[in-house]
Amino acid sequence: MSSASDVEIPLDVPKKAHDIYRKNFELITHGTGRLMLLAGDQRVEHLNDDFYGEGIHEDDADPEHLFRIAQQGRIGVYATQLGLIARYGRQYPDIPYLVKLNSKTNLVKTAQQDPMSNQWFTIDQIVRFREQSGLKIAAVGYTIYLGSEFEAEMLHQAAQVVIEAHQHGLLTVLWIYPRGNAVKEEKDPHLIAGAAAVAATLGSDFVKVNAPKKDGVSSADMLKEATTTAGKTKVVCAGGSSMDVPAFLKQLHEQIHIGGTSGNATGRNIHQKSLEEAVRMCNAISAITMDDASAEEAIRIYEGS
Amino acid sequence: MSSASDVEIPLDVPKKAHDIYRKNFELITHGTGRLMLLAGDQRVEHLNDDFYGEGIHEDDADPEHLFRIAQQGRIGVYATQLGLIARYGRQYPDIPYLVKLNSKTNLVKTAQQDPMSNQWFTIDQIVRFREQSGLKIAAVGYTIYLGSEFEAEMLHQAAQVVIEAHQHGLLTVLWIYPRGNAVKEEKDPHLIAGAAAVAATLGSDFVKVNAPKKDGVSSADMLKEATTTAGKTKVVCAGGSSMDVPAFLKQLHEQIHIGGTSGNATGRNIHQKSLEEAVRMCNAISAITMDDASAEEAIRIYEGS
Amino acid sequence: MSSASDVEIPLDVPKKAHDIYRKNFELITHGTGRLMLLAGDQRVEHLNDDFYGEGIHEDDADPEHLFRIAQQGRIGVYATQLGLIARYGRQYPDIPYLVKLNSKTNLVKTAQQDPMSNQWFTIDQIVRFREQSGLKIAAVGYTIYLGSEFEAEMLHQAAQVVIEAHQHGLLTVLWIYPRGNAVKEEKDPHLIAGAAAVAATLGSDFVKVNAPKKDGVSSADMLKEATTTAGKTKVVCAGGSSMDVPAFLKQLHEQIHIGGTSGNATGRNIHQKSLEEAVRMCNAISAITMDDASAEEAIRIYEGS
Amino acid sequence: MSSASDVEIPLDVPKKAHDIYRKNFELITHGTGRLMLLAGDQRVEHLNDDFYGEGIHEDDADPEHLFRIAQQGRIGVYATQLGLIARYGRQYPDIPYLVKLNSKTNLVKTAQQDPMSNQWFTIDQIVRFREQSGLKIAAVGYTIYLGSEFEAEMLHQAAQVVIEAHQHGLLTVLWIYPRGNAVKEEKDPHLIAGAAAVAATLGSDFVKVNAPKKDGVSSADMLKEATTTAGKTKVVCAGGSSMDVPAFLKQLHEQIHIGGTSGNATGRNIHQKSLEEAVRMCNAISAITMDDASAEEAIRIYEGS
Amino acid sequence: MSSASDVEIPLDVPKKAHDIYRKNFELITHGTGRLMLLAGDQRVEHLNDDFYGEGIHEDDADPEHLFRIAQQGRIGVYATQLGLIARYGRQYPDIPYLVKLNSKTNLVKTAQQDPMSNQWFTIDQIVRFREQSGLKIAAVGYTIYLGSEFEAEMLHQAAQVVIEAHQHGLLTVLWIYPRGNAVKEEKDPHLIAGAAAVAATLGSDFVKVNAPKKDGVSSADMLKEATTTAGKTKVVCAGGSSMDVPAFLKQLHEQIHIGGTSGNATGRNIHQKSLEEAVRMCNAISAITMDDASAEEAIRIYEGS
Repeated sequence: MSSASDVEIPLDVPKKAHDIYRKNFELITHGTGRLMLLAGDQRVEHLNDDFYGEGIHEDDADPEHLFRIAQQGRIGVYATQLGLIARYGRQYPDIPYLVKLNSKTNLVKTAQQDPMSNQWFTIDQIVRFREQSGLKIAAVGYTIYLGSEFEAEMLHQAAQVVIEAHQHGLLTVLWIYPRGNAVKEEKDPHLIAGAAAVAATLGSDFVKVNAPKKDGVSSADMLKEATTTAGKTKVVCAGGSSMDVPAFLKQLHEQIHIGGTSGNATGRNIHQKSLEEAVRMCNAISAITMDDASAEEAIRIYEGS
Repeated sequence: MSSASDVEIPLDVPKKAHDIYRKNFELITHGTGRLMLLAGDQRVEHLNDDFYGEGIHEDDADPEHLFRIAQQGRIGVYATQLGLIARYGRQYPDIPYLVKLNSKTNLVKTAQQDPMSNQWFTIDQIVRFREQSGLKIAAVGYTIYLGSEFEAEMLHQAAQVVIEAHQHGLLTVLWIYPRGNAVKEEKDPHLIAGAAAVAATLGSDFVKVNAPKKDGVSSADMLKEATTTAGKTKVVCAGGSSMDVPAFLKQLHEQIHIGGTSGNATGRNIHQKSLEEAVRMCNAISAITMDDASAEEAIRIYEGS
Repeated sequence: MSSASDVEIPLDVPKKAHDIYRKNFELITHGTGRLMLLAGDQRVEHLNDDFYGEGIHEDDADPEHLFRIAQQGRIGVYATQLGLIARYGRQYPDIPYLVKLNSKTNLVKTAQQDPMSNQWFTIDQIVRFREQSGLKIAAVGYTIYLGSEFEAEMLHQAAQVVIEAHQHGLLTVLWIYPRGNAVKEEKDPHLIAGAAAVAATLGSDFVKVNAPKKDGVSSADMLKEATTTAGKTKVVCAGGSSMDVPAFLKQLHEQIHIGGTSGNATGRNIHQKSLEEAVRMCNAISAITMDDASAEEAIRIYEGS
Repeated sequence: MSSASDVEIPLDVPKKAHDIYRKNFELITHGTGRLMLLAGDQRVEHLNDDFYGEGIHEDDADPEHLFRIAQQGRIGVYATQLGLIARYGRQYPDIPYLVKLNSKTNLVKTAQQDPMSNQWFTIDQIVRFREQSGLKIAAVGYTIYLGSEFEAEMLHQAAQVVIEAHQHGLLTVLWIYPRGNAVKEEKDPHLIAGAAAVAATLGSDFVKVNAPKKDGVSSADMLKEATTTAGKTKVVCAGGSSMDVPAFLKQLHEQIHIGGTSGNATGRNIHQKSLEEAVRMCNAISAITMDDASAEEAIRIYEGS
Repeated sequence: MSSASDVEIPLDVPKKAHDIYRKNFELITHGTGRLMLLAGDQRVEHLNDDFYGEGIHEDDADPEHLFRIAQQGRIGVYATQLGLIARYGRQYPDIPYLVKLNSKTNLVKTAQQDPMSNQWFTIDQIVRFREQSGLKIAAVGYTIYLGSEFEAEMLHQAAQVVIEAHQHGLLTVLWIYPRGNAVKEEKDPHLIAGAAAVAATLGSDFVKVNAPKKDGVSSADMLKEATTTAGKTKVVCAGGSSMDVPAFLKQLHEQIHIGGTSGNATGRNIHQKSLEEAVRMCNAISAITMDDASAEEAIRIYEGS
């Protein structure tokens, strides 16, 4: 892990924004260079599927659940849409926020039309919101579907998001998922590496990719190609759908220590639990991500022992 | 019901616009936090179908009918297109208005092309109109067809509408309807909840959804998922096509007291009646919505007894 | 007929533009509230079909023909494209002009692609032209094809045209024609009423619609639904293709006195005649429209007796 | 032929630009009101087909060839893309230039997709270039494919080009070609007249059309309909593909004296010859166009006798 | 080879930018007028295919590899995306950079959709970056796929890139590749000449084309048509996929001395080697390009002897 003084400021951040960029970087990585991102943008992406139904704790039905987790748990940054931040931010002013700038629903399937996720706000509007609200708006996020027939538009929007966010000292996280009729294996390790490479060319601080999988097998080792080609852009893995906690934490540990990732972006594996359990889960994840805890130590944290 | 002092101002409303936002909120909810919205935007959506023909009172043929109702009846806000407000507003200066910002006709069916409803005016133009006209322009409305192939454009426009309306203290109501070739059951309760969730992520003050229905049955109970996931965004149900008045009022009472909605958005069930009957209908609806009247009390109001 | 002092200024006309709006209204309605619009925008819409060929007087081959008619005949406003006005306006400075803002050719048929007529100029450019030329630019016009797959774009452009024209005291006339693969009967009375209703929601001063026709029969009576639902937006009927003069004038009289229209928009029935005959035709039409002459009186005027 | 003092300045040219407009008009028509346009924009339109191959003089392989011709020959204006003017203008400062604003290649055929030629530069950029370069940028050109599915976009761009060019005293030439899957006979005389009519509605100073042809026969007589309906917009005929010189010159003479055109726009019939021959060809064409020479006199000029 | 004083400044470079344009030209051509361009933009174009796998040295897996080569080898300019320059530029401030402005992945094949490569940044953003970073941003690059159904949009963007880059003294390189369903033989010599011709009309300083090939045979002779029609726009050949070094160097020598090109744009033939070998390869290429070395001399340089 890098220490806080290690923050390397990219050259598209102007001098006048250096301090705020450095502060944001230290804030969301707790001075470790690693990122624990609490992903809470699914109310558009999956509509209400992730928040209500079998196997989902009833706490999750209310959007405030995620704010409670973000406040009580140990996290790096809480990613969600601006509308929710505007409604709940007054009660949760201490949370470091990432504003997810684009979102789409899952209603139109790829077979019908390739995916396009459109930018909702400009960076200027986010900066204005940061000033007017006084909240800790530390970062912005944007999703690109590589291989979609709308890739050209999303690459353009993403490039604009990164360069303008940096002008104002905001950090950037790109969600990059290969998807579309042209994409046969979304989780192919070599393709995931390509996604990470694209993030590097776009100059993003972080890129969120899916954990690679080949012939049905996923292994942290497959991440090395991605984390190498990403260069100075840090790779974090998506948590994916809900799974067994010990397995999740072991996998995370390996992604970081074998795969070379710089953290994780976890949603359902946290927020589908009760508040109390979700908080422990955050703490377990953060122990691995930010304190170099072992998977076993993290499991104990999760178990509250 | 919340009292006027309970108005929670979202953080995308800047300090300089707090007073006007609060005043608008109290104006259209009569200080109750509940909304009785008189929906009169159908001259585009349904062309002249809702205003002329069998079962429709001849009063409804003239667009002034709705202004007369809005003035004489007890309502929260009257929603219609700017062009009509500009023509009739001088004679009806006391009505609180919501400017519906986008509209489409019903000529092109979903089987031919997915629905796209395009924004007609910018918020800056609405604010200029508010100033030049001196009218009580309290809110703006925008329709999103989730699941349409044009969803990306409408989500973008809606996000812009909400954030810029709030800059000027205008309230927002999003009409969100799942519709398009990808949508099989437009009124599925879980899907309606998803629509409400999207409104929350967009930070809207209110969202208008259709009453959910499953296996042909509609029940207020099915609304709970939506009103919960909508969080601080208040849900109002669309009135739908004309129906029996006592049944309508009972349903409304249940939507609020069982389903947890914060009001209603009613059009045809009001304006297809004669002026005198329509006014009584408004008063009946408002009694339930804003005075916590029982359905029976409301029916008596409607019956003029 | 209303008198000049009756002009009702809509609220999207700012105070500073009241005088010019009122003056424009009185100018093109001759203080009667009724409009005789000389339609001369077909050189794009129908290419040279309306100006050259069998049954068309050779005077019509030259674009100056319409300017001569507009100057020598009694008309309300002459509608044509800006390019022609810029070329001939110096010689015809007394004509009140309406700038038609969008146009398309008839080459691509609906079976191949739904119609889209694109805006050529912004209102700011028209206002600049009004100032630089010193001409009587009194109004602007825009065509919407309701039911086209491009309806969304045209509704947006039309809304912008009306609101910005009114900012500068310019009057607006919308040509609204249901057309596209989704439209089976373009002249259905109920559909024509829908078109008129849309014009009202857009706040236009006038709307030009086709005379309704059902089962092959056209009758002024069928216009009542449209003129009622249009409210304060005045309805004028398109003249359509060339027809027998007495029949034309009788039909016009009925449209006004039975159908409730506020005038007419006539092209081919005027300009396909020789200059001298066209001038008499203008005078006949204006007698009905603006002087409440009977059809018989108008026929005598046309006949020069 | 009109004399220089006859220049009629259209009303969309503001007073402050009158002098420059008049000067430009006199410059490119040599005070005759007739235009000899040297067309050299084909390096995009036909790629290298017109400049290299059988029957084409090797001089034509180098883009400087056309600049040499324009300098040494007698021409009205040389039309080409801005990039070439920027590269060669320093050595050829005396040539009057027309900047062709849009261009497309011939790779995608109409059967695959209707033609769309997109604007490369704004008028503001051309005016800036005129000022920075000090060159005689006298006019701009734009191509419209009437009947293309992209007609709406091109009509919009063309309208903008004309109105803004006139603001700065630049002359305009519209190339108008009916083309697209909807167009069966591109050179039908009535359709060509329609193209000329559209140019008039757009207010262009000149319009370049193809010589009309019917049942395989082309005759200058067929141009009369076009030159009449174009009104004050002057019609020039495209030279077309290479042909026998005496025939070409006779045809040109007839186009002007029978068809009523105001000149010609010739490319391949000039530049595919050697420099020396091309210069003589320019002089021959200009003699007919600008000096009212007979075809025979022009042929002698071409033959150098 | 031209000497430094020969730099011909095109007329779209304003006087105030002459010095910087001249400096940039001398910088990237080392005062020779010839360009050795190190192409390192493939992390988007080919995702990670060019950087990881069989036959690729492991040094290439890290994006810093190319920066190391650019610093230690003798090159003219290093072309890559802005994001990477922003991350590594601080450590590599002496490299002359070309910012590649558009990029697309190779996921969607032409059979599915014609290629569209969208502009990521405006020239104003590049100029701001040049100022804020203090780096030697000497040029910008843009790819056009001629014959794509999106050609119109790319021609527009390219034209804007060139004219605005020149305003600020930035040099331009256009990558022009015929590609799309309409293009049967991408490397046909006549078509490649057409691509070079288009670059000339756009006023680019350099154009990168693929080496032409006919009936499976490639020969430097085939380039003459392209280098002639390109006029003052200098042609550089793409290096293409990895090949035998001596053959590569001989081919390059012939392209320059027989084909008339002004350099090369080489990527994979350099960066897929180890750092040390890649540096020697750069030096060998630069010897031919900038020092007029023979192929044999260059081979000796490559071999380190």
